[in-house]
Amino acid sequence: MSTLIPKDPAFRARIQASFDKQGLMRTLGASILHIEPGAVDIALSASPSVSQQHGFVHAGAVAAIADSAAGYAALSLMPLGAGVLTTEFKINLVAPAAGERLVARGRVIKAGRTLTLAQTEVYSETAGEERLVALLTATLMTMESRNGVAD
Amino acid sequence: MSTLIPKDPAFRARIQASFDKQGLMRTLGASILHIEPGAVDIALSASPSVSQQHGFVHAGAVAAIADSAAGYAALSLMPLGAGVLTTEFKINLVAPAAGERLVARGRVIKAGRTLTLAQTEVYSETAGEERLVALLTATLMTMESRNGVAD
Amino acid sequence: MSTLIPKDPAFRARIQASFDKQGLMRTLGASILHIEPGAVDIALSASPSVSQQHGFVHAGAVAAIADSAAGYAALSLMPLGAGVLTTEFKINLVAPAAGERLVARGRVIKAGRTLTLAQTEVYSETAGEERLVALLTATLMTMESRNGVAD
Amino acid sequence: MSTLIPKDPAFRARIQASFDKQGLMRTLGASILHIEPGAVDIALSASPSVSQQHGFVHAGAVAAIADSAAGYAALSLMPLGAGVLTTEFKINLVAPAAGERLVARGRVIKAGRTLTLAQTEVYSETAGEERLVALLTATLMTMESRNGVAD
Repeated sequence: MSTLIPKDPAFRARIQASFDKQGLMRTLGASILHIEPGAVDIALSASPSVSQQHGFVHAGAVAAIADSAAGYAALSLMPLGAGVLTTEFKINLVAPAAGERLVARGRVIKAGRTLTLAQTEVYSETAGEERLVALLTATLMTMESRNGVAD
Repeated sequence: MSTLIPKDPAFRARIQASFDKQGLMRTLGASILHIEPGAVDIALSASPSVSQQHGFVHAGAVAAIADSAAGYAALSLMPLGAGVLTTEFKINLVAPAAGERLVARGRVIKAGRTLTLAQTEVYSETAGEERLVALLTATLMTMESRNGVAD
Repeated sequence: MSTLIPKDPAFRARIQASFDKQGLMRTLGASILHIEPGAVDIALSASPSVSQQHGFVHAGAVAAIADSAAGYAALSLMPLGAGVLTTEFKINLVAPAAGERLVARGRVIKAGRTLTLAQTEVYSETAGEERLVALLTATLMTMESRNGVAD
Repeated sequence: MSTLIPKDPAFRARIQASFDKQGLMRTLGASILHIEPGAVDIALSASPSVSQQHGFVHAGAVAAIADSAAGYAALSLMPLGAGVLTTEFKINLVAPAAGERLVARGRVIKAGRTLTLAQTEVYSETAGEERLVALLTATLMTMESRNGVAD
């Protein structure tokens, strides 16, 4: 699909550098696992520091890595100089986010000129087994030529 | 409205105790400002530790406090022994989450036996001025008599 | 609020004319009740022709009038020549859509240059009593200077 | 997957009979194309009677068939006597719903005891070519033993 050809050949380095500027990802302890055109995976270790009251990973932390995965999947297809902003997302939480770590797999569904639709599946891993815990759909906006909003 | 009469007179202490168990809220530096029947406000200071790449508060952090505010607004109307779980939420981000701090105001729209609909408005505060930055709607589920899932 | 000043003084006639072109609204039997800057109300009689399998109004019909109400609330604030398109919406259905008729009340939450956030509450009316049955939030896009996409 | 084994062997006839009771589907001119465990496809001819103001199929009509496809995909896995209700859905509209007809492909993502998550992709067909126009995610509730709410 033509939409999955990156406009900036250095998209991997650009995404990693942008991710490294996300203070929240560092605070949560999240990291990028994998970057491909239109696809970014992010991992988060389950720990008390990201929990809700029952000991599961908080829906907000699940949403945070799912949103970043969707956003960077979208950014991977944007031209150099463009910035990405989330305008909305919805997340369905289908199982408690338990296990050792979570992996959020963001994928571009449709890349438009102004708006991109991406979807992220979040899996929990326990002893090598994966289980779907959440599904997010997000709208990402391409911001061009605005001060302070690149990548 | 009859739905706004708390079934547990000690709902405020119960919500504060549950919030204090949310490791993520402590990690982000969020705190409860206000608890009323069907209404909970949560504050978060804007800082580099909760930022995205452009320096605004990360959508995931905005969503985290908005989700907790919606969840505890719902819990304020639930009977003693019940637990609250988010089954889904959607958030629209209408302005960059800049400013000194964010305040998430969660309100119950409709409290049902199994499912509650709540809505949270998130405002950014700068020099005493408030600006709407996000709107979240969430479905919360009442969990009764399940091990480990109370409050 | 400055966002609620219509840019086109003839916004009421323009919205009614656009609504009259919506074949779906005619097919469902929906009509506009009220137009104000940033606010449009649409009514739909409950009847077997818009039902789901249990006899309630189908969620799709509820969503259709809620989406049109949100879209025209947004259009009421757009300049002459601009067209409105829905990019996404979410609807929570909090009670069966029973009763004699439904009224969808669309309101603009935030009008931006490109994107507008609007929210619609849908009420069912029975013997003069109103009951909330659904809550929709929608993102509307302002389309400028595109062939065939005006109003 | 065990969740995709239908509990009622007569699920196809039951879904078709329920669909035939949906007055809205008849009014729109929609029909079921295909029923498998956890999967239902619904078709709608594009015509002025389901249009919005620019001549495309109205987002409400797109949502209506997408919601029915998701709901019946969920019902295909529910036991005899259970009824299905939509509690919420979100739809992203990624391209104008033009073309000759629309096909909504509903699929169960996760079937739970009380709540089921389903997703529907809606394609427009023109001269044998398919194009994605919308993506819906829906939460469906299993209603057991309630008067008037079966199937």
